[in-house]
Amino acid sequence: MRLKIAVLAGDGIGPEVTHQATNILCAVAELGGHEFTFVEGLIGGIAITETGSPLPTATLDAALECDAVLLGAVGDNKFNALPPDKRPEAGLLQIRQALGGFANLRPSIAYTALSESSPLRPEVTKDVDILFVRELLGGLYFGAPRWWDRESNEAINTMRYTRDEVVRVARVAFELASNRRQKVTSVDKANVLEVSQLWRATVTEVAKEYPSVTLEHQLVDSMAMHIMNIPRNFDVVLTENLFGDILSDEAGVITGSLGMLPSATIGGAVNLYEPVHGSAPDIAGTGKANPLGAILTAAMVLRHSANLEQDARAVEAAVNKVLDAGYRTADIARGQQPGQTPVSTQEMGKLVHQAL
Amino acid sequence: MRLKIAVLAGDGIGPEVTHQATNILCAVAELGGHEFTFVEGLIGGIAITETGSPLPTATLDAALECDAVLLGAVGDNKFNALPPDKRPEAGLLQIRQALGGFANLRPSIAYTALSESSPLRPEVTKDVDILFVRELLGGLYFGAPRWWDRESNEAINTMRYTRDEVVRVARVAFELASNRRQKVTSVDKANVLEVSQLWRATVTEVAKEYPSVTLEHQLVDSMAMHIMNIPRNFDVVLTENLFGDILSDEAGVITGSLGMLPSATIGGAVNLYEPVHGSAPDIAGTGKANPLGAILTAAMVLRHSANLEQDARAVEAAVNKVLDAGYRTADIARGQQPGQTPVSTQEMGKLVHQAL
Ligand SMILES: CC(C)[C@H](C(=O)O)[C@@H](O)C(=O)O
Ligand SMILES: CC(C)[C@H](C(=O)O)[C@@H](O)C(=O)O
Repeated sequence: MRLKIAVLAGDGIGPEVTHQATNILCAVAELGGHEFTFVEGLIGGIAITETGSPLPTATLDAALECDAVLLGAVGDNKFNALPPDKRPEAGLLQIRQALGGFANLRPSIAYTALSESSPLRPEVTKDVDILFVRELLGGLYFGAPRWWDRESNEAINTMRYTRDEVVRVARVAFELASNRRQKVTSVDKANVLEVSQLWRATVTEVAKEYPSVTLEHQLVDSMAMHIMNIPRNFDVVLTENLFGDILSDEAGVITGSLGMLPSATIGGAVNLYEPVHGSAPDIAGTGKANPLGAILTAAMVLRHSANLEQDARAVEAAVNKVLDAGYRTADIARGQQPGQTPVSTQEMGKLVHQAL
Repeated sequence: MRLKIAVLAGDGIGPEVTHQATNILCAVAELGGHEFTFVEGLIGGIAITETGSPLPTATLDAALECDAVLLGAVGDNKFNALPPDKRPEAGLLQIRQALGGFANLRPSIAYTALSESSPLRPEVTKDVDILFVRELLGGLYFGAPRWWDRESNEAINTMRYTRDEVVRVARVAFELASNRRQKVTSVDKANVLEVSQLWRATVTEVAKEYPSVTLEHQLVDSMAMHIMNIPRNFDVVLTENLFGDILSDEAGVITGSLGMLPSATIGGAVNLYEPVHGSAPDIAGTGKANPLGAILTAAMVLRHSANLEQDARAVEAAVNKVLDAGYRTADIARGQQPGQTPVSTQEMGKLVHQAL
């Protein structure tokens, strides 16, 4: 198996966690006799600083020639005053759009070993295994017109969806649910927004193609509550772009830390893999960052781009083993108990490597 | 003290919880020698059924002549197939707009007696006292253009804010924080949305008028997580319309049930009071509804429209006393323990009345 991976480490803790993820990929390649090659590229704040653009053409060209793109994190407070299209995040939005992946998969899993890390009671998080399917190329993120007019002191963004955009991401959700617990929960605000009414009608229609999968609709406000009260009720959660952004971060609470959450974006020319967490500039370089989100993202590369399901599971099992053995980065050390060992970013990476 | 209150009970559990709230207001009037008069009006699904409109002119005219409007809940599944402007919720949005209140205050408080009702650990919710200030007349709820074109299969909503709209609601938040713990957390998505950039810049400017109050900015996705992880960190949370809808429902988890949450909308011609919960058609008429959200909303009427702060506190104390004595409606009976007594909507109302 050969795989060419563009590695865009980005800002803040991006480089340090991505380094641990590529280490794991190298280990898998060695164990399995695969050939993974890595091509590095600039994105985000570091790209602005070095080239003036948050997504240099060189990066995009390289990415489009790879089989997968592994991204670290983007975002740097030093660009906070700039308009959205000049910020590090613009690089992320541009590469998402250019690669074309519209279905962003974000698993939210409760690890038994981390049940003390969550602010939720263990009996609430027990056995939770949710897969968010977040639409990634539509809605307020990309809708036009969009502007902030400093003369009239007015600003506008546009939430826009077409039926086709909803159909394609809904199909991904139903396909995934078919191989899981046969349930899709679609989230919208259909009691207020026309866009949500189109969303709900379209998802209802797509559901007919999958008679064995149950579809339920939830309003986004209720869902923000249900997902904390009864997370076990959910299997695949299908959302538009912004709702998915909010709810999948919220669901990080189930696992115990955003630092644990991976994501994969599929459906386009090249799949894009990124941990859910941000660039966390405050802890960059301190060894406090949790590399498990990035490592679990690497497992998703194996699953969705290399078709190495067994290896993906092996990486996930190694992560579980290290957690069971009590090793904890700072973010998952809440309610630390005897038998737990605090470790740095690098140590955590090494431990997973050894457990493989 | 004289007060004329329009009572719009609405759909589902609206009438039964509102009835308990007006009972309490009558009790307060009697005890204090005040004269509260109530004018009933139709709104929502029941108004559509009886008059064809979700907000009949008669209701609006009556409401505008009152000192306060007390609303129950609107929403009925039987209208689910209709477009937003023909649904029960349209009546709610229309009356919000007509009354002109732009600052929706939603307290989220952890009651010690209910610490077992929350999915969050008691040590996380302990002493939490957050006040959401949700902008209620702008953003995606009211922005134009908005449409769902069934020919082109495309739909659009517009998120729009002007500087003035942000200034006025921000001032309310800072004023309130001045009398609380001196902290405002403003929520936006300024790394992606132009509207959020206007929001953030404006709030930052308004903050200068209140040098003793600390302002912090949070992105809506991070906030959805922080509010579960470290709710004690927040005092006043200032948000645009949709973000406030989502986050304030999510924060219901802190109290243990949406059924406990009151709200008041101020700043317009007539203040509007509504519990945060919806019409819950599935439990309407079964005696399962929690009237405490409506009763605590009545306390907000006393505070913000009658200037009866002492009486407002007395009602809140009575609610606390009943909870401390172990009385529970179904929604707050999670983890029921010895010493707790399940009660109906009506019994709960009576208990609060007696405790007054
Ligand atoms: C950094 C930001 C643009 C991004 C998003 O909102 O999509 C992030 O929050 C995420 O969830 O991947
Ligand atoms: C019923 C609905 C229109 C309303 C809203 O979204 O504002 C409700 O969810 C609320 O929070 O008051």
